[in-house]
Amino acid sequence: MAVRYTPATADDLHVVRGIALGTARARIKSWDRDDVLLILADRGSVAAGVFTRNRFCAAPVLVARHHLAEQQAQRVDFRALVINAGNANAGTGEPGLRDARATCVEVARLVGCDPAQVVPYSTGVIMEPLPLDRLVAALPAAQASARPDRWLDAARAIMTTDTVHKASSRRVVVDGETVSVTGIAKGSGMIHPDMATMLAFIATDAPLAAPLLAPLTRDVTGVSFNAATVDGDTSTNDSFVIAATGKSRIAPIVAASDPRYAEVAATIEAVAVDLAQAIVRDGEGATKFMTLRVANGRDADECRRVAFAIAHSPLVKTAFFASDPNLGRIVCAIGNGAAADLDASRVSFWLDDVLVVDRGGRAAGYREEDGARVMKQDEITVRVDLGRGRASAEVWTCDFSHDYVKINAEYRS
Amino acid sequence: MAVRYTPATADDLHVVRGIALGTARARIKSWDRDDVLLILADRGSVAAGVFTRNRFCAAPVLVARHHLAEQQAQRVDFRALVINAGNANAGTGEPGLRDARATCVEVARLVGCDPAQVVPYSTGVIMEPLPLDRLVAALPAAQASARPDRWLDAARAIMTTDTVHKASSRRVVVDGETVSVTGIAKGSGMIHPDMATMLAFIATDAPLAAPLLAPLTRDVTGVSFNAATVDGDTSTNDSFVIAATGKSRIAPIVAASDPRYAEVAATIEAVAVDLAQAIVRDGEGATKFMTLRVANGRDADECRRVAFAIAHSPLVKTAFFASDPNLGRIVCAIGNGAAADLDASRVSFWLDDVLVVDRGGRAAGYREEDGARVMKQDEITVRVDLGRGRASAEVWTCDFSHDYVKINAEYRS
Repeated sequence: MAVRYTPATADDLHVVRGIALGTARARIKSWDRDDVLLILADRGSVAAGVFTRNRFCAAPVLVARHHLAEQQAQRVDFRALVINAGNANAGTGEPGLRDARATCVEVARLVGCDPAQVVPYSTGVIMEPLPLDRLVAALPAAQASARPDRWLDAARAIMTTDTVHKASSRRVVVDGETVSVTGIAKGSGMIHPDMATMLAFIATDAPLAAPLLAPLTRDVTGVSFNAATVDGDTSTNDSFVIAATGKSRIAPIVAASDPRYAEVAATIEAVAVDLAQAIVRDGEGATKFMTLRVANGRDADECRRVAFAIAHSPLVKTAFFASDPNLGRIVCAIGNGAAADLDASRVSFWLDDVLVVDRGGRAAGYREEDGARVMKQDEITVRVDLGRGRASAEVWTCDFSHDYVKINAEYRS
Repeated sequence: MAVRYTPATADDLHVVRGIALGTARARIKSWDRDDVLLILADRGSVAAGVFTRNRFCAAPVLVARHHLAEQQAQRVDFRALVINAGNANAGTGEPGLRDARATCVEVARLVGCDPAQVVPYSTGVIMEPLPLDRLVAALPAAQASARPDRWLDAARAIMTTDTVHKASSRRVVVDGETVSVTGIAKGSGMIHPDMATMLAFIATDAPLAAPLLAPLTRDVTGVSFNAATVDGDTSTNDSFVIAATGKSRIAPIVAASDPRYAEVAATIEAVAVDLAQAIVRDGEGATKFMTLRVANGRDADECRRVAFAIAHSPLVKTAFFASDPNLGRIVCAIGNGAAADLDASRVSFWLDDVLVVDRGGRAAGYREEDGARVMKQDEITVRVDLGRGRASAEVWTCDFSHDYVKINAEYRS
């Protein structure tokens, strides 16, 4: 972890009533640690997910999507999430699908539910067969070890190239009762597609009605994981599920217009943002965390395109690594990301509080030493004003260092 | 020049009848060399151009576009191209526009033509005022030195961060007469937006009618400069102009259906491809040249998106640098670039002649040592078969080395 970040301790991670977590060692790879996680949800839980748009999506992604859709269509509970690290079960064709389904069948048998109530995640090497026997053999031990207070162990069991575990937890008081939201994630940015990549799971004990979950998951993803980028690659396995157990002692929340919905949703969003930013901070070779905030664009899509054009430019990322306030590179990236009819003479941008470009040209008061001062920080905000609308967007990324090339060039050697 | 490449010598570069080239030293930067190029075209010449789509386009780009449009609208000749290296005249607002126009006025005065018959290019640092006085003062010397055989000097005068000059020349016999096509370019990929970036000019003495030039320039750009990428950034100054002097002794070519048009166009295209590939080979820190050939897609746009998704993936580029046949990264990039309805189980790809992925899964006969053998080469072709259409596309790029980060991080220090 090159960018300063204090990972959560076991005490930081609140129990979510109705959720228990167990781990075991399946020896999927030669790691000396647990690599299988079984998350068990009590009856009455509901869940929804968002998955990779990569066209080579992995077998567990196909099965997870199908099972969550079945849960919604058949109005049955979400009962378990099973995760293995070390093998992505991606690019494995029909045998891979059979393995992902067989894993769910085995979990369902242990839990006493239908296989469609089980959601699978895999992360690890692509295009190698899943070692199903070893995975299945480890499941009883994972089940036996399941406890509500094992969130930290859970976060560790799903790591691959991550240098630290990623977990976050928040509480909110609703109707006088404490509602807990706890989540875990893995990923070093979108930057290890062959150790296939971003997984996240957030649970709350709030009694959110099932139909609220899918739109909530999409909304939360948009302002958290979809705002985080290390190098713009989307993996074959990216998966994010939100589950609600309903075990807190408040009355069911059945409509998005319920003010309690907004409180719970904001808490879930905050946890998702924590996890997404933790992934960026753990980007390979990252030495700096950059927030790109684009305001006053015509629509949110334009703002996002400009923010990602900056975030994905290798020239901008290497300039940040070098603490070089290289205006031309940022100007170019803005010009590449904006819509064709953008009026460049209305665009301004700031490095933190320093006005750099004022309505299309170098700001009169800008001095290079002011830019250089900001660029030396390890957290930097680039703020862009497109000067023509009311929409905005925020994106996070990290810089591109010598170590990025080193780590990725030598990854398999 | 890290990737093997033999730059053209003066003898390689054929005179184009009706074109003379002169250079001078304007001391735009502290280089010890000429940095202004004046290309003079005889009466009867016509030209058309393609320019950057970056929304922060530079003042000379705005003026060049306008002047070429005026030449077409008023049916007046193209008479001169004036290029300065060292200052991009970009992000300079209204004063920058005045400077670009004043440069054309001065060239027009020397040549004895209308300012609209002059096209300006600038390349260099962004957001600094053009040193107009020094540029204008150098123009008479550039004019005085103009000769038809100075293409090599011309190619050298426009270099900025280029490590070698880029020039190419070809001939074709049409109606028993030799037609010459010669071109120059500068750029180390799209990778130096603050030394703002790709400029190219190709001239022929073929008598191409004015209305043929604009579509020809667009078509040629599509299969040459727009197929070349180092890091996906488009600069504020990218410009490409084709001029035809009509001084070869063949009858005018007035229709694209004329079989002589196809011969001349193919020759111009070949020169443009030479120049575009030279830019990629000179990409900063490049150690390998990669050709990405995507076939059997639904349409050309899908094929280009897949090719560019591979070409722009930092993970793929670092794997090529490391000679690591990392299948997962290429698979991921294909999956990111293809349309949503792509059937991954029909996709195959090859590293040169080695079948790696066969209809969605690892090829049965694939051995890692075969992939490693190809990856060690300094020229590699990745061939992708999308298995669902008849369209295709080809794109060239280079790898991402330690030196890319080093050069770009330390560029201004």
